[in-house]
Amino acid sequence: MKRSFIREILEYIDSDTISFAGGLPDVSLFPLDELQKAAQRVLENADSLQYGHSTGYAPLKEQIAKYYRDRGFPTVAENILITSGSQQGLDIICRYYSGTSIAIEKPSYLGALNIFRLNNLNRFDMPLSQDGIDSDLFRKSILQTKLAYLIPDFQNPSATCYTDKNRKEIARAIRDSQIVLIEDSPYSELYFDMPHNSISQLVPEQSYHLGSFSKMLAPSLRVGWIRADKALLSPLIAYKEAMDLHTSGISQRIISEYLKDGKSFRKHLQKLRTSYRKKMNFFCEKLDLYLPDFEYTRPRGGMFIYGKLKGVDTVKLAKICLGKGVVFVPGAEFNGASDEIRFNFTNSSFEEISEGLKRIKSSL
Amino acid sequence: MKRSFIREILEYIDSDTISFAGGLPDVSLFPLDELQKAAQRVLENADSLQYGHSTGYAPLKEQIAKYYRDRGFPTVAENILITSGSQQGLDIICRYYSGTSIAIEKPSYLGALNIFRLNNLNRFDMPLSQDGIDSDLFRKSILQTKLAYLIPDFQNPSATCYTDKNRKEIARAIRDSQIVLIEDSPYSELYFDMPHNSISQLVPEQSYHLGSFSKMLAPSLRVGWIRADKALLSPLIAYKEAMDLHTSGISQRIISEYLKDGKSFRKHLQKLRTSYRKKMNFFCEKLDLYLPDFEYTRPRGGMFIYGKLKGVDTVKLAKICLGKGVVFVPGAEFNGASDEIRFNFTNSSFEEISEGLKRIKSSL
Repeated sequence: MKRSFIREILEYIDSDTISFAGGLPDVSLFPLDELQKAAQRVLENADSLQYGHSTGYAPLKEQIAKYYRDRGFPTVAENILITSGSQQGLDIICRYYSGTSIAIEKPSYLGALNIFRLNNLNRFDMPLSQDGIDSDLFRKSILQTKLAYLIPDFQNPSATCYTDKNRKEIARAIRDSQIVLIEDSPYSELYFDMPHNSISQLVPEQSYHLGSFSKMLAPSLRVGWIRADKALLSPLIAYKEAMDLHTSGISQRIISEYLKDGKSFRKHLQKLRTSYRKKMNFFCEKLDLYLPDFEYTRPRGGMFIYGKLKGVDTVKLAKICLGKGVVFVPGAEFNGASDEIRFNFTNSSFEEISEGLKRIKSSL
Repeated sequence: MKRSFIREILEYIDSDTISFAGGLPDVSLFPLDELQKAAQRVLENADSLQYGHSTGYAPLKEQIAKYYRDRGFPTVAENILITSGSQQGLDIICRYYSGTSIAIEKPSYLGALNIFRLNNLNRFDMPLSQDGIDSDLFRKSILQTKLAYLIPDFQNPSATCYTDKNRKEIARAIRDSQIVLIEDSPYSELYFDMPHNSISQLVPEQSYHLGSFSKMLAPSLRVGWIRADKALLSPLIAYKEAMDLHTSGISQRIISEYLKDGKSFRKHLQKLRTSYRKKMNFFCEKLDLYLPDFEYTRPRGGMFIYGKLKGVDTVKLAKICLGKGVVFVPGAEFNGASDEIRFNFTNSSFEEISEGLKRIKSSL
């Protein structure tokens, strides 16, 4: 199996290299003090260090269930399986369905592509449009598959946000079929204008909804979850148990303690949205200045800007840029076109954004 | 797939039930204050919350490598892959070799049996003797397999500790063959008289050595590792990455910070050995008093006492005992005989040990 371009790159670049590659949050925005205080309280209780339940820390499962209920999606703790990041959530599901087939967006998240390979899932690619996935194409594709994998909110890598109309059409197609949807939603809270309802809540009995604290809070904690109907969720528990017994209890309890004060979390999310929108706008300004030929749509949320440098081989360009101290991910890594590029705009400072785009310009 | 008896039981028993079932450490012995201080220092640095490398936190890998070197087993950081518990370490290896075959001890660790099933590994059972695995039997078994899975130190469930002579014979058999050894060593540091050299260090190019902080420090952190030659280790990295990107960064950094003061860890291990030996001796006294027909060998380390109630169906007995508020794991769960039992002696208090064994006596 091949390793991910991004993760291999991340391990070898030095600190002078400006990275628009990984989907890394802005390190300066982590609620460090509050998580430190939460950890302190968690480690006053020796039970925090003992083995926990395979399905997750009960209070955290209830907090996540409430998060769904507050958004109009009826959910109880038994609908939640805590996983070691949503990466593991996706792997657990795909392992359970291994050897079957899956309809996916083109381009798609490269960590997911690796999981599909690992689990011998036969892939049917569906090219993304501005609105999401054309519903006729979707209906046709799922005739041949058992699963569909979609990232409707600020998709990785394309930043596409499905329209409400498209979400409803896709839900209808799912209801008319036997397939199960895997809806991956790591960026849903990182909207710049308005939040969107999930497709899963329109088809609760035919969907796995994947959530994660990696982008909302802190990736190093490695805590995500699967939300699903009990009938869909329960066979996965034995897999989770065999795979790592349970997710880090310390990570789970720190998050649970932090979430107790709901106001802090709401304020933190608001801060992320404001700050990321500002960075995105700055990145777009500099793109228009230094790379005027780069064709893209300004994202309405998430962490990425995706577009095209018509006719440029972006794998070759990436290698030249690496030599000049700036990295990005070529579209080909996501099963995208050979002249496409994904930029992450959240991790670099304003100065690095300017300097990095200047270096790319000089590599063209 | 079936869930583990122990983990399902753990989720449903109430706090009045005395459990000799799970392999749970004594909660009162966790170095809570020191881990709290370590967490505090870790969370002074925002980088602790960012994504990390798939192979693990570099300083921790180096600390683990040094741990091996101090024990006469030449090792560098590149030989270490940090995993989400050694459970995940075993799953990664077995997934890489999925569909092949494996020689294992009978009885064996039930979490491993689940992993072998999950990865479609054809199992060849080798009955354990007092000394380990008969080397002729071992040579014959590995003719038919690609892998061997052994727990030479205070085996789970049988508490068997391989003799030095047996370790050398097995290493010789491995060298004479093409197979790869998976040596699982979660209990190695929990010796009551003396430590033992691993088999892996006799066959470093044909072995994966699995380690874990779960029994030495705290299971909720979910940090283990694979130690192997670079050629064996490197294809596993892409699997680890696809499975959960990396192990909890917070967990890894807390451990690394704690280990910086080597003296604390050495003192802690000494305390565990003294305390567990005392509990083991107490458990054996009470066993001899309340269940004089229970045939067993007093363990020389680890967390378990394993033996036989001749002719008693211990699955039936376990169900009766559950009703009386005491649980243990019947041997059948480990691929052992139907009249065998595994008792964990580390997790219960002295009072609970007495009371629990009394309840079992009254269930016979």
